Amino acid sequence: MAKKGDLLSVRQDIRVVDATIRDGGLCNNFWFDDKFVKDLFNANVKAGVDYMEFGYKASKEIFDEKDFGKWKFCNDADIRKIVGDNKTKLKIAVMADVGRTDFEKDIIPKKDSPIDLIRIATYINTIPAAVEMIEDCAKKGYETSINIMAVSKANTEDIRTALEILGQSSVNTFYIVDSYGALYPEQARRLADIYCEIADKYKKNVGIHAHNNQQLAFANTIEAMTHCVSYLDATVDGMGRGAGNCPLELLLGFLKNPKYKVEPILKIIEEHTQKMKDDGVMWGYDIPYMLTGQYNTHPRPAISYVKEGRTDYFKFSNELYDIINS
Amino acid sequence: MAKKGDLLSVRQDIRVVDATIRDGGLCNNFWFDDKFVKDLFNANVKAGVDYMEFGYKASKEIFDEKDFGKWKFCNDADIRKIVGDNKTKLKIAVMADVGRTDFEKDIIPKKDSPIDLIRIATYINTIPAAVEMIEDCAKKGYETSINIMAVSKANTEDIRTALEILGQSSVNTFYIVDSYGALYPEQARRLADIYCEIADKYKKNVGIHAHNNQQLAFANTIEAMTHCVSYLDATVDGMGRGAGNCPLELLLGFLKNPKYKVEPILKIIEEHTQKMKDDGVMWGYDIPYMLTGQYNTHPRPAISYVKEGRTDYFKFSNELYDIINS
Repeated sequence: MAKKGDLLSVRQDIRVVDATIRDGGLCNNFWFDDKFVKDLFNANVKAGVDYMEFGYKASKEIFDEKDFGKWKFCNDADIRKIVGDNKTKLKIAVMADVGRTDFEKDIIPKKDSPIDLIRIATYINTIPAAVEMIEDCAKKGYETSINIMAVSKANTEDIRTALEILGQSSVNTFYIVDSYGALYPEQARRLADIYCEIADKYKKNVGIHAHNNQQLAFANTIEAMTHCVSYLDATVDGMGRGAGNCPLELLLGFLKNPKYKVEPILKIIEEHTQKMKDDGVMWGYDIPYMLTGQYNTHPRPAISYVKEGRTDYFKFSNELYDIINS
Repeated sequence: MAKKGDLLSVRQDIRVVDATIRDGGLCNNFWFDDKFVKDLFNANVKAGVDYMEFGYKASKEIFDEKDFGKWKFCNDADIRKIVGDNKTKLKIAVMADVGRTDFEKDIIPKKDSPIDLIRIATYINTIPAAVEMIEDCAKKGYETSINIMAVSKANTEDIRTALEILGQSSVNTFYIVDSYGALYPEQARRLADIYCEIADKYKKNVGIHAHNNQQLAFANTIEAMTHCVSYLDATVDGMGRGAGNCPLELLLGFLKNPKYKVEPILKIIEEHTQKMKDDGVMWGYDIPYMLTGQYNTHPRPAISYVKEGRTDYFKFSNELYDIINS
């Protein structure tokens, strides 16, 4: 696939998606105070960010509202309390997991909602259920994306088949999701080429959501972008589950479009996210996450390990070997 | 340039160089205790590392021995205290800065020294002085490399001219050194291609030494490697000046040659480097280093800033703008 753009010019197709509240919410069960969310919204507007993901539209049948902060559920009224009628250029996104969202009830017609984009998260074996959600949301007037998780574990033929099905749906954007932080840049570029080949055929966009288990989230994001990907997920301070995500401040500093500015995000880091870390919210590159990334496996054992405060990495590496091979 | 190797097979030309004591010594003025250095030596042997850099051969006329730990000077006797007659496969390296080494006096004939490789560090404007050192060391029987620092600031024509001069010298290996952590993977690949083109002509090797200001040290190292580079610098836990280096544990986990093992390095992290961090030795990715990397400038202002314990990143970013543009 031909390289798109170069290191000095502007790519008009680029869209930066701030996923801090959604992926970062996995670190603190979505207990963000309104001041933080409001400050982040305003900073994203100033920074030229294109989309801000507020959280999940999680099913209240499956999850108890008392156990989580409100951004697990993203009631339209709660979003409106932050953004009002949102007269800014920053679009609002939420994530809806296949099988864990009462989309027919909880996703209301777009004309009555502050939300612009519904991001539908699926594994490769639940594509038909995802298509049902895509069509429901599209009919209600939303832009949609399909975020195929754990793609480092999927085989190429299955990915092609899934994308061909999705190409024929109403979805606007295909997303490469490296849930395990296992992809190397060479693999990210190769996946980007496959996604873009099918996306071009069906006039869809392609995005990437990377994890930082091997300190490659930023590298994979810009390498996929250089090939053809245009929707780029990032989070402030890299906040996100386990090793976290592509840091928004690295991405904004890299992009050449003068509308993107890193400084408003620096303020959020110094005023908010560093304090969250000091208060014990945990995320970011660490040896246990590196190991699950190298093993191309779910970060679950690493997350438990880090929570326990253990630092016997050598022993953990042996335990992990047993977990994976048992 | 054709891609060398793939993600599954072994490249016989690869050499892993552990630069922990040398680059990490810049974080603690080389005050490492002998137990650490000895443990690291043994771990590197077990991990299959090819070279271990012990420190600098710094001039005792310029630097006072009382102000630094011994690895700033790397007396042959001090190295021998760690490695004995070094009957292992791990080769010993030291760095010698152009203009800051009394090489005629302090670098003794190879037959009387435990050192195998002298790494000569130079800026692009001191190549003739570097060649003088190369020839002196080569005549004494050492393998040599030339480490051209701050290459992100050099222009391509100067790099080509320098490499043509060096190609005609006795040096064994050309090194790409991203002192400012400013290179993006695309640029690392482009530089690798230039270095390798000239290296192939003169039968030299090519190496890379990356810094982690933009979380790209590992990515740039493996991307340069995939193009053609074979000598790969890394440090345990990424320990090194400012944002640090390519973490050795990431690199060893990536390489497919079964002789490389990550586990012995995990032990060094849990037993030593994490404790150094707890004791106040500072290195690793942080916002101020990110900013000097994005600005493609020396990390000096960021190092002072971090030492002062400041976290007003927004203000620092404005100060940096003024420092660079004044």
